[in-house]
Amino acid sequence: MAKIEQNSRVLLVSLEDNSRRYLVDVARGKFSTRKGDIDLSALVGKDFGCVVSTHLGEQFVALRPTLYDFIMKGVRRQTQIVYPKDSGYIALFLGLGNGMRVFECGAGSGAMTVVLANAVAPDGKVVSYEADERFYELSRRNVAAAGLADFVEIHHRDLADGIDGAPYDAMFVDLRHPWEYLETLWRGLDGGAPIAFVLPTANQIIQLLGAIQSHGGFVDVQVLEFLMRFYKTVPERLRPEDRMVAHTTFIITARKVVPDGKD
Amino acid sequence: MAKIEQNSRVLLVSLEDNSRRYLVDVARGKFSTRKGDIDLSALVGKDFGCVVSTHLGEQFVALRPTLYDFIMKGVRRQTQIVYPKDSGYIALFLGLGNGMRVFECGAGSGAMTVVLANAVAPDGKVVSYEADERFYELSRRNVAAAGLADFVEIHHRDLADGIDGAPYDAMFVDLRHPWEYLETLWRGLDGGAPIAFVLPTANQIIQLLGAIQSHGGFVDVQVLEFLMRFYKTVPERLRPEDRMVAHTTFIITARKVVPDGKD
Amino acid sequence: MAKIEQNSRVLLVSLEDNSRRYLVDVARGKFSTRKGDIDLSALVGKDFGCVVSTHLGEQFVALRPTLYDFIMKGVRRQTQIVYPKDSGYIALFLGLGNGMRVFECGAGSGAMTVVLANAVAPDGKVVSYEADERFYELSRRNVAAAGLADFVEIHHRDLADGIDGAPYDAMFVDLRHPWEYLETLWRGLDGGAPIAFVLPTANQIIQLLGAIQSHGGFVDVQVLEFLMRFYKTVPERLRPEDRMVAHTTFIITARKVVPDGKD
Amino acid sequence: MAKIEQNSRVLLVSLEDNSRRYLVDVARGKFSTRKGDIDLSALVGKDFGCVVSTHLGEQFVALRPTLYDFIMKGVRRQTQIVYPKDSGYIALFLGLGNGMRVFECGAGSGAMTVVLANAVAPDGKVVSYEADERFYELSRRNVAAAGLADFVEIHHRDLADGIDGAPYDAMFVDLRHPWEYLETLWRGLDGGAPIAFVLPTANQIIQLLGAIQSHGGFVDVQVLEFLMRFYKTVPERLRPEDRMVAHTTFIITARKVVPDGKD
Repeated sequence: MAKIEQNSRVLLVSLEDNSRRYLVDVARGKFSTRKGDIDLSALVGKDFGCVVSTHLGEQFVALRPTLYDFIMKGVRRQTQIVYPKDSGYIALFLGLGNGMRVFECGAGSGAMTVVLANAVAPDGKVVSYEADERFYELSRRNVAAAGLADFVEIHHRDLADGIDGAPYDAMFVDLRHPWEYLETLWRGLDGGAPIAFVLPTANQIIQLLGAIQSHGGFVDVQVLEFLMRFYKTVPERLRPEDRMVAHTTFIITARKVVPDGKD
Repeated sequence: MAKIEQNSRVLLVSLEDNSRRYLVDVARGKFSTRKGDIDLSALVGKDFGCVVSTHLGEQFVALRPTLYDFIMKGVRRQTQIVYPKDSGYIALFLGLGNGMRVFECGAGSGAMTVVLANAVAPDGKVVSYEADERFYELSRRNVAAAGLADFVEIHHRDLADGIDGAPYDAMFVDLRHPWEYLETLWRGLDGGAPIAFVLPTANQIIQLLGAIQSHGGFVDVQVLEFLMRFYKTVPERLRPEDRMVAHTTFIITARKVVPDGKD
Repeated sequence: MAKIEQNSRVLLVSLEDNSRRYLVDVARGKFSTRKGDIDLSALVGKDFGCVVSTHLGEQFVALRPTLYDFIMKGVRRQTQIVYPKDSGYIALFLGLGNGMRVFECGAGSGAMTVVLANAVAPDGKVVSYEADERFYELSRRNVAAAGLADFVEIHHRDLADGIDGAPYDAMFVDLRHPWEYLETLWRGLDGGAPIAFVLPTANQIIQLLGAIQSHGGFVDVQVLEFLMRFYKTVPERLRPEDRMVAHTTFIITARKVVPDGKD
Repeated sequence: MAKIEQNSRVLLVSLEDNSRRYLVDVARGKFSTRKGDIDLSALVGKDFGCVVSTHLGEQFVALRPTLYDFIMKGVRRQTQIVYPKDSGYIALFLGLGNGMRVFECGAGSGAMTVVLANAVAPDGKVVSYEADERFYELSRRNVAAAGLADFVEIHHRDLADGIDGAPYDAMFVDLRHPWEYLETLWRGLDGGAPIAFVLPTANQIIQLLGAIQSHGGFVDVQVLEFLMRFYKTVPERLRPEDRMVAHTTFIITARKVVPDGKD
């Protein structure tokens, strides 16, 4: 069984209320919750999955954080991020696997960047452009914190300047006005390769669909959304939770076509 | 740009109706659709993403199939499969990445097995048990067809006989009566590691939740489902499709806890 | 208990498959299903709720049809109709009750007209405009078939010619370009009274919201939609149906405000 | 246009934030919001739909409250109520109209009672049983406050004592253990007439479905739920709200069958 070490990061989840969860570095020594302090140094040498109590008696389980936990609790965010509700599907739709080269624009807080990087590691690479300097710095920090920096190149760069290193095996686009860059994206994508966009509003979907239709270089266009509904976990009274997230983003997927004569 | 070769597999998608899509081996030479025949040999040497016509004039784009396409069109199925709507999220929740060792039971048609294998390749491994001989053979064939056999061991074996090679970094369980095997699953899972179950009915969820509660070795239990809604892609009339899939499966996720004194 | 009479209408629902249901007049004497003929004359004098068999042995229950059944099975339709999934809520939102006067435009096939009429009967009235002569005739026939003609006036008239008989207590609008008539609708509605629109596409919602904003005479604007999900009714395996309706219409609701100085 | 009178009740909706809404009696004279006081007496003689300001300048529109507004803001509740999201459909499914006699059990806070009463008024009647004395008193007060007392008889009575006044044209059942009363309900319902149940948990649905199957006196059984999703109303950025209600209740509908020989 995997042991907690001095330089481990652990996810602490309250056994009373699993919405109370914290991603912490053991090296901090001590962690204060609203219901008492946890002595992190006492975790060293124990197995992941063990139970630890605050000095006031609330019990927490110490889990080995997964990439999912990192996205939910570890990514420092200054933007709307892409959540696992959507990013798991996108990575699968893009057909990502070891060794692939995927292009992303923009990196934002880097929550999708780490999903992409994890999917193409160890032999692939994510090349990501981010025009906003703050997000450029932020996404780099988040990718490093996820331990995936070796598989990512983030450039402080605007898509209007074109795409280097083409063609890419897949693309992920999280921009406000992606329709302005369709030709650039098309040129950067390998023949027949998949591309996914995220856009929050119907107005943007309408504009992107119109631009895709005019451009002519994308086929198999799909627009979709996910509703994720959680249930209360009391076996005697199984029922959905009272409230849920109603919307994060729409997802638009397509593939590059190379019509005869187009070059 | 990637070229189509004699031994390539291509996904042919109709430009008239993208629900008409076929996953075919170029080596077959010819492929007959309902609206005419396609000369596959003429594709050799062309770029992926090119357009090809049937002898009756219907146009298809020839795409390089992704793992997603393989699941949707390539997996031969004799069971209900886990669809990308659900499997993308599950892989992400399980925190899969290169090098991890994941246990699956049962393999079924292998649609989830290939997602797991793709996520842990090239240095990880999926160990999968399948008690039914027909599905054992079927899942092996599908994993091989996906080109992922190197990262998968499927055993024709019943979970009642225990789990070899423990502890595993993550588990995926697709069984009718998973509550009968909770202790076996718990023993096979590494401390604090994630596990996901799929179950189609509320009755099964109720029974599993009760068993998990009694067992005491799993925490952070979540029950959830995804509704995936597609939209018509006409920019002048954006609206959801008329009909959608209402249910595939419920997903139950949890983590292994090792209470003091439990061993 | 209510008896079936010679001039009754009955809803026949198959006990094998409740999607096989027929709304028939007993006076027809005989009714042919795909699985045999039913002797309707034998029903006369029996109680509603009795079971009748075809000559091939399939059993049907003979129900007294409700307004709901009439909408689902009795309304002859040449247009998209408003379904009970949406119309029940709309009638409730509009606050309809006996004695109210409600304005509708356009009548379409009359499926909403009968819901409105049923809600304001016996002392209220629905005044409905329908510019298309075919739908004008059709909606009149359907309202008469529902037995609600006494509570409805349908006029073959275009909304561009203004609204007679104002002010109305509530309004229901089912037009393609309702934004062209906002001032007319506003003038016809009583102060503070509710109005509901149905529109199928996001583009139309966007245009209507913009027009409402510019007009300034409507407040408390809400845009909403209903997803209705059915479950399989096997108690041992409770689960949602495999497929569902994903979209019928968006609903937009508002109230008339009379800003100071506006007249 | 309808005028506000001294004894009117008005719905005040903030023009800044329509979630700030209050149902108040004009006779109170003054109403204090979080952002200032409103002089209600100044409303007398004005038209409904007029705008009124607090002494701090926030504007409210004064609407004539509908039954919908009463349910949302006027019903004093000590129980989970049935919301318009569900009750509009139920009333329509039950085929309620003027003159019908409908049986309800239990009355709860009376939010469904007023919908039923409004639908069968002026010539029909709702007979409702409520075994809990607190809810019996509460539902009577709410029905009276809705102005519908003439169309409702609420009895402080347990369903175990049988149903007086049968047969009823329709039934609505909101009980924790409705399966215990199926035979009583069946006997009270007219032949072929509709019945609707609300139940919050899957466990209850499973138990009710099993009991209905064993009883044999109900057909055309449907289990369903509604998801209601609101959209942000900014025309330049149309998108669903971030969060929504995920669950209120499941709805079960059926009809009474009278099998041969059953009496």
